[in-house]
Amino acid sequence: MGENEKILANESKVLSPQRVQYYDIAIESGKGALLRDANGKEYIDLLASASSTNTGHAHPHIAAAISEQANKLIQYTPAYFANVPAAKLAERLCALAPISGPVKLTWGNSGSDANDAIIKFSRAYTGRQYLVSFTGAYHGSTYGSLSMSSCSLNMARKMGPMLPGVVKVPYPDAWAQLPNETEDEFVDRMFAAFKLPFETYLPAEETAVILIEPIQGDGGITKAPQKFMEKIYQFAHENGILFAVDEINQGMGRTGKWWSIQNFPGIEPDLMSVGKSLASGLPLSAVIGRAEIMDSLGSPANVFTTAGNPVTTAASLATLDVIEDEHLVERSARLGKVAADFFTKEQEKFAFIGAFRMYGLDGGIDIVDPATGKADREATTKLIYRMFELGVLIISLKDNVLRFQPPLVITDEQLAQAFEIMDQAFAELQAGKLSLPANAANIGW
Amino acid sequence: MGENEKILANESKVLSPQRVQYYDIAIESGKGALLRDANGKEYIDLLASASSTNTGHAHPHIAAAISEQANKLIQYTPAYFANVPAAKLAERLCALAPISGPVKLTWGNSGSDANDAIIKFSRAYTGRQYLVSFTGAYHGSTYGSLSMSSCSLNMARKMGPMLPGVVKVPYPDAWAQLPNETEDEFVDRMFAAFKLPFETYLPAEETAVILIEPIQGDGGITKAPQKFMEKIYQFAHENGILFAVDEINQGMGRTGKWWSIQNFPGIEPDLMSVGKSLASGLPLSAVIGRAEIMDSLGSPANVFTTAGNPVTTAASLATLDVIEDEHLVERSARLGKVAADFFTKEQEKFAFIGAFRMYGLDGGIDIVDPATGKADREATTKLIYRMFELGVLIISLKDNVLRFQPPLVITDEQLAQAFEIMDQAFAELQAGKLSLPANAANIGW
Amino acid sequence: MGENEKILANESKVLSPQRVQYYDIAIESGKGALLRDANGKEYIDLLASASSTNTGHAHPHIAAAISEQANKLIQYTPAYFANVPAAKLAERLCALAPISGPVKLTWGNSGSDANDAIIKFSRAYTGRQYLVSFTGAYHGSTYGSLSMSSCSLNMARKMGPMLPGVVKVPYPDAWAQLPNETEDEFVDRMFAAFKLPFETYLPAEETAVILIEPIQGDGGITKAPQKFMEKIYQFAHENGILFAVDEINQGMGRTGKWWSIQNFPGIEPDLMSVGKSLASGLPLSAVIGRAEIMDSLGSPANVFTTAGNPVTTAASLATLDVIEDEHLVERSARLGKVAADFFTKEQEKFAFIGAFRMYGLDGGIDIVDPATGKADREATTKLIYRMFELGVLIISLKDNVLRFQPPLVITDEQLAQAFEIMDQAFAELQAGKLSLPANAANIGW
Amino acid sequence: MGENEKILANESKVLSPQRVQYYDIAIESGKGALLRDANGKEYIDLLASASSTNTGHAHPHIAAAISEQANKLIQYTPAYFANVPAAKLAERLCALAPISGPVKLTWGNSGSDANDAIIKFSRAYTGRQYLVSFTGAYHGSTYGSLSMSSCSLNMARKMGPMLPGVVKVPYPDAWAQLPNETEDEFVDRMFAAFKLPFETYLPAEETAVILIEPIQGDGGITKAPQKFMEKIYQFAHENGILFAVDEINQGMGRTGKWWSIQNFPGIEPDLMSVGKSLASGLPLSAVIGRAEIMDSLGSPANVFTTAGNPVTTAASLATLDVIEDEHLVERSARLGKVAADFFTKEQEKFAFIGAFRMYGLDGGIDIVDPATGKADREATTKLIYRMFELGVLIISLKDNVLRFQPPLVITDEQLAQAFEIMDQAFAELQAGKLSLPANAANIGW
Ligand SMILES: Cc1ncc(COP(=O)(O)O)c(C=O)c1O
Ligand SMILES: Cc1ncc(COP(=O)(O)O)c(C=O)c1O
Ligand SMILES: Cc1ncc(COP(=O)(O)O)c(C=O)c1O
Ligand SMILES: Cc1ncc(COP(=O)(O)O)c(C=O)c1O
Repeated sequence: MGENEKILANESKVLSPQRVQYYDIAIESGKGALLRDANGKEYIDLLASASSTNTGHAHPHIAAAISEQANKLIQYTPAYFANVPAAKLAERLCALAPISGPVKLTWGNSGSDANDAIIKFSRAYTGRQYLVSFTGAYHGSTYGSLSMSSCSLNMARKMGPMLPGVVKVPYPDAWAQLPNETEDEFVDRMFAAFKLPFETYLPAEETAVILIEPIQGDGGITKAPQKFMEKIYQFAHENGILFAVDEINQGMGRTGKWWSIQNFPGIEPDLMSVGKSLASGLPLSAVIGRAEIMDSLGSPANVFTTAGNPVTTAASLATLDVIEDEHLVERSARLGKVAADFFTKEQEKFAFIGAFRMYGLDGGIDIVDPATGKADREATTKLIYRMFELGVLIISLKDNVLRFQPPLVITDEQLAQAFEIMDQAFAELQAGKLSLPANAANIGW
Repeated sequence: MGENEKILANESKVLSPQRVQYYDIAIESGKGALLRDANGKEYIDLLASASSTNTGHAHPHIAAAISEQANKLIQYTPAYFANVPAAKLAERLCALAPISGPVKLTWGNSGSDANDAIIKFSRAYTGRQYLVSFTGAYHGSTYGSLSMSSCSLNMARKMGPMLPGVVKVPYPDAWAQLPNETEDEFVDRMFAAFKLPFETYLPAEETAVILIEPIQGDGGITKAPQKFMEKIYQFAHENGILFAVDEINQGMGRTGKWWSIQNFPGIEPDLMSVGKSLASGLPLSAVIGRAEIMDSLGSPANVFTTAGNPVTTAASLATLDVIEDEHLVERSARLGKVAADFFTKEQEKFAFIGAFRMYGLDGGIDIVDPATGKADREATTKLIYRMFELGVLIISLKDNVLRFQPPLVITDEQLAQAFEIMDQAFAELQAGKLSLPANAANIGW
Repeated sequence: MGENEKILANESKVLSPQRVQYYDIAIESGKGALLRDANGKEYIDLLASASSTNTGHAHPHIAAAISEQANKLIQYTPAYFANVPAAKLAERLCALAPISGPVKLTWGNSGSDANDAIIKFSRAYTGRQYLVSFTGAYHGSTYGSLSMSSCSLNMARKMGPMLPGVVKVPYPDAWAQLPNETEDEFVDRMFAAFKLPFETYLPAEETAVILIEPIQGDGGITKAPQKFMEKIYQFAHENGILFAVDEINQGMGRTGKWWSIQNFPGIEPDLMSVGKSLASGLPLSAVIGRAEIMDSLGSPANVFTTAGNPVTTAASLATLDVIEDEHLVERSARLGKVAADFFTKEQEKFAFIGAFRMYGLDGGIDIVDPATGKADREATTKLIYRMFELGVLIISLKDNVLRFQPPLVITDEQLAQAFEIMDQAFAELQAGKLSLPANAANIGW
Repeated sequence: MGENEKILANESKVLSPQRVQYYDIAIESGKGALLRDANGKEYIDLLASASSTNTGHAHPHIAAAISEQANKLIQYTPAYFANVPAAKLAERLCALAPISGPVKLTWGNSGSDANDAIIKFSRAYTGRQYLVSFTGAYHGSTYGSLSMSSCSLNMARKMGPMLPGVVKVPYPDAWAQLPNETEDEFVDRMFAAFKLPFETYLPAEETAVILIEPIQGDGGITKAPQKFMEKIYQFAHENGILFAVDEINQGMGRTGKWWSIQNFPGIEPDLMSVGKSLASGLPLSAVIGRAEIMDSLGSPANVFTTAGNPVTTAASLATLDVIEDEHLVERSARLGKVAADFFTKEQEKFAFIGAFRMYGLDGGIDIVDPATGKADREATTKLIYRMFELGVLIISLKDNVLRFQPPLVITDEQLAQAFEIMDQAFAELQAGKLSLPANAANIGW
């Protein structure tokens, strides 16, 4: 029995089965875009820890910042007193936010709690109670963000009643367009579906916030049409509804811009939630928003003992350094084009590659049954499993979407190597050489 | 303008006003029970970052563990793959839990999200929806834990509707007993108040969980009577209601036991939430519970990208080492006695010291108007402010309770020195020498 | 098999078992305070159809009004057009309300829907969402009023989640006072319990309404202390919370005043719900309140097709005639004194008669175990069953309270006769002559 | 000033403005399909009091039954004892229900409370909490039924939070079909929209009930496609979800069948709510359902003091007599055809008559702008107002739907006369002779 197997066997006795199953490994160490498991096997990472390690693994500048801070002060709760790195980071982050006018933030530990905070601040500022989110959305696992999510039934099962006041409207995702429907017709139909609640049972003037992932992550790496965003944005403005964006998965350079909302010219959020890669995967999140909104709650309406911790904020300061110094936003944009080229070529070779979407180093590639064009879950599982065997760590989303989110520091060579392996796996699938792994039934969301 | 003042001035422009106000400092570094602010002034820490740094500041063993892990792997999300330190920690923590039979845990980043998870697992396991918590409780700041809290109106204001199904019953705290009431009469009356909802509108057979702080922290460091605990525990068992304890503030050696519930012979929780000092103040929490309960939810019902992060779990492993190696639980018990002796003596000297409670290094000291015996908020503010000036960092709870929670590594000398300063402040108050600080109105909860 | 038995046997095959079980009869006809069942047996009615026939049975003036209207117009929905009797009744009822300043009303069909309406208007007028009601309260069976009720667990079981935002506080009922507690201490303690939520988790400034039965009906015919009412009334006023009274059971002359709230000098409600005897037991209810509150909702926020129906409002106009012409309010007060005298005398004879309360023809008589003073459910069942056998129709409330609510038109002779029968049953119980009926286990709430 | 005006002037001072505004009249008397207002003007009634007087006005058989019963016994609450007419009616109604197997019912006073009861029984029987209803639905005005409604924003405004657990899906109404979409494509698209919540956030296995108006009334008199009904019906069955139909508006012969669900071959509800015309407009409703469902709640989970009142149930017995004796169901079907012929002819003459739907004497006629085909609210108001002037009482639904629901007893002559008047008004509109009434802005939903 290898180390991986030992670790997992022991862990399974004491860990609640909350993990989404893919491959039976325990990660031991990493460097840049490379990972090593407990058995010593190496992988090129195309997942970036679910987009939480955009700066790659064990970046020396960040590791040094963590180390230095830990030796000075591991923790003092910002709930009672300021600490030096958190205070610096607050200024730097607010300056980065794509929001004009005065901006403030509040700290959290997770993307989840940041979205709970968005609910709180939206309700407090507007004095309204209703909340709108989208099907397909992943907003997190605390009760507020869970109630706003719509991505997996297991996020609702056996936990209700959920937070009252949430209405979910259909997200205009890549699969929702009807055959023969023009983009404009599609946008009109989706906007009509968006407005239906407001016309029949949801008073717009009592709606606090519309929370959206401008590009859905777990929903399949899929971007809402610009015109749709404009329409709901205008609707929000006309009705005094706050417009909030979840940048937890798609922010921090992932999409070739600092923030995914910057892919939508003319749209400026009132509030945004950030997390994941914010402190390179140490637990830190923030809600950043217009100052008057962020001033609307009294203390201690949104405090967490360890949020804005000295170590995590020091790590975040170093993360911002790296993104800036290594031009990771631009790198993401450039390599995203390389990736798009690659998948376009593969599409020509392999009929089972359906549509794909690529926004910076952020892609969703649909694997379909060439005969019907329908989602092919089995083929997807075969592919990712084969890639895993060949040393590329990649997982799926939904039934049949390859999730392509490498660390932004991935080298050109590593990327080329990963593509070679992917190409090999595609070819093997084409040739009918791939079979399902034993635990295929458990694999995936 | 000093560094403190500069930092705070800048921070205030970009930080949502969520901090509970006490003194205008920014913490820069620490060592053991000592803190240094940005102006270079030193303090003996009697707050331990709200009980989140029980091992003291910048403990070399813990700092080293953090540093080493950061250089190996900062993050890989346990939501998809195991990592080495988290897997180890899970085993070690489950072994520590005061629960017989098989035990499992789930990771979180904050005490708050752990209590949200308690709600989820309780509902899932029992198939019931109602939840019971206590007045005075602080359970956290995400929507689930917020809905269970009852400690400050600002934790409810402008955020509703809250999570449905929560019923709050009165906690038998130190101030609830009537004059002329025996302990037994008190317990009977409080238990009757506890049962009133169950007799009139809350079906016991639809109640999932009773969540309690066996010793309330933010509620004033106050312990429920043993007989009361026995009664509600028996009630829970008779009605198939899970019994969950919040050990976030009071666990990890704080009360002279590993867990505060161990101060109650014969009571064994089904579920417990831990956090704060678990990773010495790095964001890490867990819900530990009977395995069959922890198995009741499917993935991804309770996952957080960064929960069970390699760095935070490495820090937690080192924290457990320190607690064990330095015998901090026993130390807490022993120094708690020293503290009790001190405050007993002070009580004799100073009529404004009302009742106090001390459970390990965990105390609440009531400051009262000697004439009426009523809470004296002003005197309390004068005292803590004066102690702060004299180099002892201590805050208040409720209106008039001194919160005494030093790091458990505080040396005997440091403790003696803190007591000297406290005695001086007490004497100055007695002598009428203390006046309110300028910002007194903003100080405190 | 008698007619009663046949009817019940058939009915049981097609009726959901929602009836509270007492005696196996089907009522066929009535006249004043007399009832006749399908087997032809006669009873003196001490229940008045749960206080819904204060004017007695088949009153000729009322029957004539119904008959006349039915031949003219049975129904036209006030949701779209006015009808003549409803318009008249609105004026007359508003003039009767114990509210100074302009008053308006809205129609309903049941006490239940009236209390739902109180929730709606309170929220709309105040813009606040939280609601306060009392343990022991019966407010009805639609989701709003059910959520405000706290009288029987079967009113909550298997139906949740209930309407969010309701907080229940303890009612200062006849059994809540501690031994050795003065009335003032009692009031202070109950008021402290009332304030506890407001001090810990319920923002007063977000609370829309306090809804109270000034005298609880199904809670046991028990009146809140005047000083308690003053305190909560003042609290409501100071905090902009509406003060609403439920007069459905206790209004319409029942307590020797037009409205039960008139037993509390100085207290004037913002809103009141009326029903039951309003149309002599035809389905009609109303919420009457300060005009500016009643103007706060737009159409069709509170319409019911048949509410304010021509026949029911004609019946109500006739009911008001009868109450006025036959001086039933005064009669209720006078006969209430007669009843009080009777029960005082019986108390001296029978040790199992504990405390009793009498407010007009509205009484609750506690049957206790003379040895312990505790509630004696069995004795209560024996008594009411024996009275039923002897021709007096009376039921119990809670475990051991005789519910005394005869039609207000009961003659002095009928009352005397009923008392004779009651005295006989009391004596038989004393003599150990009474045994439990076969179905005793099913009898009662 | 006429009587109408006087009555309304007085009433407006004391009545909460809950009425949907149409014409300023007070109804004084009626006979069959004729109405007379307080000024003595006569109308042919095409509204039937919102389908609550299907047997017409002041029917002698029904008036006699009411009168007779009122002289015998006006009320005894079925909450405690049976009464003769209610017991009879229960049997007769259960026999009429389109449900095979044993059937039971529970009484209510309004359609609204019946739908609240459907929620209760569905939750109790299934042990599940989630509820599904449709946009466009009108289910009533108590908190349960209000929370299920989706017909007018005023039914949600300022009243929230609503009952938790309700999810609203789009109703496949007459206006939802896309141009160029086949009926099958339409049904598929609507069924996909129906399933979207179940696939993303609503666990089917936790869903208690789907409540639907098989033909929506206030939603515009519009019928779901048979295939759609089959799909959701099958979905319900496959997932253990109860299938409940609201027959309050459309039952009792209105659609040419006893119940509107009988227009859908092969569909049999688990539960149905009836009201409105059930007692010819006296307040009476019922939930009728499979016996095992109706047995799932204990007493007093669903009792109303006056529900199943002797007078209302006597009126209902007489109503059933009339429907049967006068063959009103068949009459509704036959006259519905006559009406369909009429409107088909009118469509040819008047381009502003868009689509219309006619199911028995139950029709919705769309008034559109001939140029664009879009809803023409102004033309609609002009038309109904002109018809009113000419002695035909008819109102609109939504913006532009003529609501055609005459009493089923309308004579052939009266119907012909009404059509003549309608034709005149149509012609006048065509000729540009109609102008808006002064209060046009207030007219309509
Ligand atoms: C878009 C989005 N929002 C929120 C979250 C929740 O973040 P966390 O897991 O840190 O709580 C995630 C995590 O996957 C996410 O992708
Ligand atoms: C008893 C208790 N539970 C829960 C929490 C919430 O923990 P966190 O601030 O880490 O979310 C706290 C924090 O003060 C606490 O004292
Ligand atoms: C005080 C009180 N309020 C409300 C109600 C509900 O009235 P109804 O049964 O007419 O819905 C009752 C009925 O017993 C009652 O006693
Ligand atoms: C379909 C439907 N359901 C329920 C109701 C509510 O009935 P009620 O007004 O009697 O409460 C109505 C009333 O219009 C209705 O049309």
